[in-house]
Amino acid sequence: MNFSYFMPTEIFCGRNCVTANCGRLRELGSHALIVTGRSSETNGALADVLSALGKNGQSATLFNCVLPNPTIACVREGIALLKGCGADFVIGLGGGSPMDAAKAIALLAVEERADSEIFSGGYGNAALPMAHIPTTAGTGSEVTPYAILTDDERQTKTSISSPALFPRFAFLDGKYTFSLPRAVTVNTALDAFSHAIESLLSKRATPLSRVLATESLRILYPLLPKTAKTLSEEERDDLLYASALAGMAIAQSGTTAVHGMGYQLTYFAGIAHGRANGLLLGETLRLCEEKNLPAVKAITLTCGASVKEIALTLDTLLGEREAFPKSDLLAFAKRSASGKNIQKSAYEPTEEELSRIFLRSLRVK
Amino acid sequence: MNFSYFMPTEIFCGRNCVTANCGRLRELGSHALIVTGRSSETNGALADVLSALGKNGQSATLFNCVLPNPTIACVREGIALLKGCGADFVIGLGGGSPMDAAKAIALLAVEERADSEIFSGGYGNAALPMAHIPTTAGTGSEVTPYAILTDDERQTKTSISSPALFPRFAFLDGKYTFSLPRAVTVNTALDAFSHAIESLLSKRATPLSRVLATESLRILYPLLPKTAKTLSEEERDDLLYASALAGMAIAQSGTTAVHGMGYQLTYFAGIAHGRANGLLLGETLRLCEEKNLPAVKAITLTCGASVKEIALTLDTLLGEREAFPKSDLLAFAKRSASGKNIQKSAYEPTEEELSRIFLRSLRVK
Repeated sequence: MNFSYFMPTEIFCGRNCVTANCGRLRELGSHALIVTGRSSETNGALADVLSALGKNGQSATLFNCVLPNPTIACVREGIALLKGCGADFVIGLGGGSPMDAAKAIALLAVEERADSEIFSGGYGNAALPMAHIPTTAGTGSEVTPYAILTDDERQTKTSISSPALFPRFAFLDGKYTFSLPRAVTVNTALDAFSHAIESLLSKRATPLSRVLATESLRILYPLLPKTAKTLSEEERDDLLYASALAGMAIAQSGTTAVHGMGYQLTYFAGIAHGRANGLLLGETLRLCEEKNLPAVKAITLTCGASVKEIALTLDTLLGEREAFPKSDLLAFAKRSASGKNIQKSAYEPTEEELSRIFLRSLRVK
Repeated sequence: MNFSYFMPTEIFCGRNCVTANCGRLRELGSHALIVTGRSSETNGALADVLSALGKNGQSATLFNCVLPNPTIACVREGIALLKGCGADFVIGLGGGSPMDAAKAIALLAVEERADSEIFSGGYGNAALPMAHIPTTAGTGSEVTPYAILTDDERQTKTSISSPALFPRFAFLDGKYTFSLPRAVTVNTALDAFSHAIESLLSKRATPLSRVLATESLRILYPLLPKTAKTLSEEERDDLLYASALAGMAIAQSGTTAVHGMGYQLTYFAGIAHGRANGLLLGETLRLCEEKNLPAVKAITLTCGASVKEIALTLDTLLGEREAFPKSDLLAFAKRSASGKNIQKSAYEPTEEELSRIFLRSLRVK
């Protein structure tokens, strides 16, 4: 039993938790940069945050143009705005993209790096203090030390990892997810499900990450089919909590082969991140079952379903799969093979096996 | 689902984890006050810490006279030594008593309080940085925001609670527990078991504290009978990990009626803390079962044993129970009834019920 554990973010979970704990935001600073996309204006999250800051006598500047799969340019724009307005803390509000952009802004505002050095690691322990408020139930970014950005040099998505990227606070209120479009609910739930599964399939899984990932799966798997229909408010809350649990798990273990492959589908074909993972998950599980990984037994036991049944559940959720020329799929496999996520997998698939996963997971045109 | 979660301590677990991660101690300061009892000299923990500090070029002063159930006077002595030697961080090394004394020293060195105000709460967020190294598998103090001290004014043991009391680092190495006397192994395991059970029986139990407490129980219960015999090294490691899990659980939920009652047996009769809890646990579980608390079902399911069977396991471990005049037991019940731990119980026992627990849990002489 040789492992470490660290997850210093303070979590507030429940209806109206931002309002109920608004005083805690005072600990972060006097002027917030709120990093968000456009949906936080309609789901109520932005209004709650502005009202909380107002009550505290804190001011804020809005940076609300984060698009999915944020780029370094977007992060640079945020840093310029932050420095211009004198913000001393950052609030990340939205799905994974605004939260990850917020993290990169909070880190790079303190530690200056050339674009080419951003993914080189070796960050110190300092970043501006952050509070994160997820408005999708999938990314878990509110409780991880990672920020995933588009990496045009390597033509993929790559993570920055530093303990400084753990937000000080995470506020989990399922009400912000009530108005999500169905496709976003499905895709982000697939992301959370993939986090829980991949954490269990990681070489770096620890006794504690396994407990958290297993509990996440236990809640998530029965909810998956419902994401395509109508979720009750309670089920939305459960989904958000399970997504945070999976985030706490990957905060320890990292993600593995599925994310490594999925980034190709997102970078080159614009497939939504969660869907990309969902597309590749069934075949990856099949491979791990063939290789007799003990984690697969833990997964099927927790889900109360065989790998075949889990794959069928995913099939139903995913609908028609995207079509690619065979040469593209083989190129994706080749590119994935050299990624760091593959090396973190308890079973490291060969390029041939990655090709098989891509060919079976997508249509060939 | 309305809860918060906070446990910012970074855990290093595994054989020789102090040595393997010694560089991290540099983050804490330049001169350590090492707060410990006498056993750390023989179990190897003190040697490992001194060697780690030496490698880092850090100096240290030893405060090794902490006795079980530390007093305010002991804490004052530690603070005087700390100020005299100019220590800027604290290492707590030992069972619950040295670790709790270390926490109180680290807190009260920063925030001065009169003796009469020590248990009044309202502490700020500041304490000297701490690393804790448990050498018993029971207290969980290395991952909690509590320091339990003897409170002579109230004639009981009382906790100080503050987020500032979470150590920065916890090092869990089972090897420091190999040489524990059998009675200490048994008593401290009973303490950990009680933490896990009481956390589940707490009004303040949360979804996350339940997961941690349940996992602790799953590991602990089968190990309990073995604590009175010979534990393998792996079982010692598991016990220490389970004790930390239970600590993480009570860090969220607090302890409940059993601790509230147990403090009386320790304060007035000197019964070891863990044994005191163990003595009262069976009857408390019986009462909660009578009251149909859902947590009892979760407990019996996880242990794979009925309340009756759990009580029998405890009976065997405890051996002959201590004898008291009936009037003493009734007085203990009366005193417990007004304690804050009782109010945190999911079922709050009445004074009559507390009397029944004391009368059935101890012999009447």
